[in-house]
Amino acid sequence: MRIVVLAGGIGGARFLRGLKRAVTDIDGTDITVIGNTGDDIHLFGLKVCPDLDTVMYTLGGGIDEERGWGRTDETFRVKEELAAYGAGPGWFGLGDRDFATHIVRTQMLAAGYPLSAVTEALCDRWQPGVRLLPMSDDRIETHVAITVPDGEEGAGERRAVHFQEFWVRLRAAVPAHAVVPVGADQAKPAPGVLEAIAAADVILFPPSNPVVSIGTILAVPGVREAIAEAGVPVVGLSPIVGGAPVRGMADKVLAAVGVESSAAAVAEHYGSGLLDGWLVDTADADAVDRVEQAGIRCRAVPLMMSDPDAAAEMARRALALAEEVRA
Amino acid sequence: MRIVVLAGGIGGARFLRGLKRAVTDIDGTDITVIGNTGDDIHLFGLKVCPDLDTVMYTLGGGIDEERGWGRTDETFRVKEELAAYGAGPGWFGLGDRDFATHIVRTQMLAAGYPLSAVTEALCDRWQPGVRLLPMSDDRIETHVAITVPDGEEGAGERRAVHFQEFWVRLRAAVPAHAVVPVGADQAKPAPGVLEAIAAADVILFPPSNPVVSIGTILAVPGVREAIAEAGVPVVGLSPIVGGAPVRGMADKVLAAVGVESSAAAVAEHYGSGLLDGWLVDTADADAVDRVEQAGIRCRAVPLMMSDPDAAAEMARRALALAEEVRA
Repeated sequence: MRIVVLAGGIGGARFLRGLKRAVTDIDGTDITVIGNTGDDIHLFGLKVCPDLDTVMYTLGGGIDEERGWGRTDETFRVKEELAAYGAGPGWFGLGDRDFATHIVRTQMLAAGYPLSAVTEALCDRWQPGVRLLPMSDDRIETHVAITVPDGEEGAGERRAVHFQEFWVRLRAAVPAHAVVPVGADQAKPAPGVLEAIAAADVILFPPSNPVVSIGTILAVPGVREAIAEAGVPVVGLSPIVGGAPVRGMADKVLAAVGVESSAAAVAEHYGSGLLDGWLVDTADADAVDRVEQAGIRCRAVPLMMSDPDAAAEMARRALALAEEVRA
Repeated sequence: MRIVVLAGGIGGARFLRGLKRAVTDIDGTDITVIGNTGDDIHLFGLKVCPDLDTVMYTLGGGIDEERGWGRTDETFRVKEELAAYGAGPGWFGLGDRDFATHIVRTQMLAAGYPLSAVTEALCDRWQPGVRLLPMSDDRIETHVAITVPDGEEGAGERRAVHFQEFWVRLRAAVPAHAVVPVGADQAKPAPGVLEAIAAADVILFPPSNPVVSIGTILAVPGVREAIAEAGVPVVGLSPIVGGAPVRGMADKVLAAVGVESSAAAVAEHYGSGLLDGWLVDTADADAVDRVEQAGIRCRAVPLMMSDPDAAAEMARRALALAEEVRA
């Protein structure tokens, strides 16, 4: 069974860890992950790919479990020294061990390798047990149109900032008016992306952010169409439980694109042209009817990834719903 | 009194610390350091300037006293992680705190600032108490023609390697046939270098390597001539004591340029056209006559920089010899 998963950062990575566990008994299963690169950022001259790294570290056993991002047993000495030089930004958490990943990546990119080849080389070390592809080798950067908060220069004005500045520095606490994956319209899917989708037996959307994670992947020309035309079950899991994001601040960016923060609204946002099945949490059982009326098969199951076993059970439920849809 | 000092790495930095101490009682003294950049190297996409940093860290209180290079209280986590990725070279000791310096420098260079402006910006933090100028803003890289050692590919053949590869990886333990400051012939002195020399009251050569440190600075077109024509005392201190380098492997590179490893031979190598005074160690008192016969005033004094006080006393002796020459 060939499974293709569109993944953002922490939620996607933890779901993937569950999925790997869920399919250990199924012979000949392979998993291809199409990773979001819209929140990639250049910091200190280095190319940082937070979502790809979160997937790679999580599946490769190098993640900081508590934070959910960055390396375990991490220190921040380079960052402290950069701050001593007055070099910013200080709000982005780059650890010492993490720095090495960005240095290797940046060197390989400078040597002319595309991001997909670089990602494969980094995975040689981490052995994530999945094939990890960036959604594109082209540069795509998600920008958010915000209202500049009080106390900052230009307070009250609208301004476009990098997604990471909105998410990490401003903690999504300012009004967001639009989310734009800059460069996406000119980008091409990375080598292997469309081929993996075309060859998939099932396609999964983990409980990742529907706007800035999965939405950005779908914004790469050809990806949405390839999924819609793959002719295989496409099943997603709601990142919204009981009207609030399980983690992160998905509600803020949903509001920016005019979608209410509910399990049903996110399914409708993807739409029945894309999605065949949708899992909502048992707390949102009353959303099942609404989702099914939108033409999407829906089931209510526990969706809290409190540990890898819970994530594995969610993956089993998603695969089961895919088979139900297929039948 | 305006003092200009040509400096390499550890020896130059420790002498400068002594010099600062020696002149604290002299009103209106300022020290300009012309630092060697011939052993600069690009590692992991970063511009590393070992000699400039050694001077900056030593005078700014950030040096690892025991090693003589790099930062105090240093860790090597980035380097360990780079090794885990198989990214080399592993033989160059880049610490975590040190990395930040190279990151800031590389970013500023990429933004278009010349190395002299970058060095000034880094010194804003370190406040070394001297004006530190790179010898040139142009790229100069000292290469060494070696015989490839047994057990390596091309064993027995001649090959040119970067000075750091000869010095650090090969520990100067292979035959060196030539030392070439690649790019020097096309380089220009950094802004302020010739002006500082022209305005100097005294010019000092610390006990730095006469070939790959001070020799490289003198190889920048115009520098040697400016010193010779400055019309002020030029006094040096021998890096060779009792026929051997006080530290480092100066004898290896002296052999490569056909100069014997002795206090007198190094003075003759500089020559009376450049040098007015020369300090040898008391162990080399018998060299005094030979040096004076070469037209260079010579005195034998203790030249072991065992602590900052000893370095300060050496600086006082050098300044005294300068006044003796001037009179």
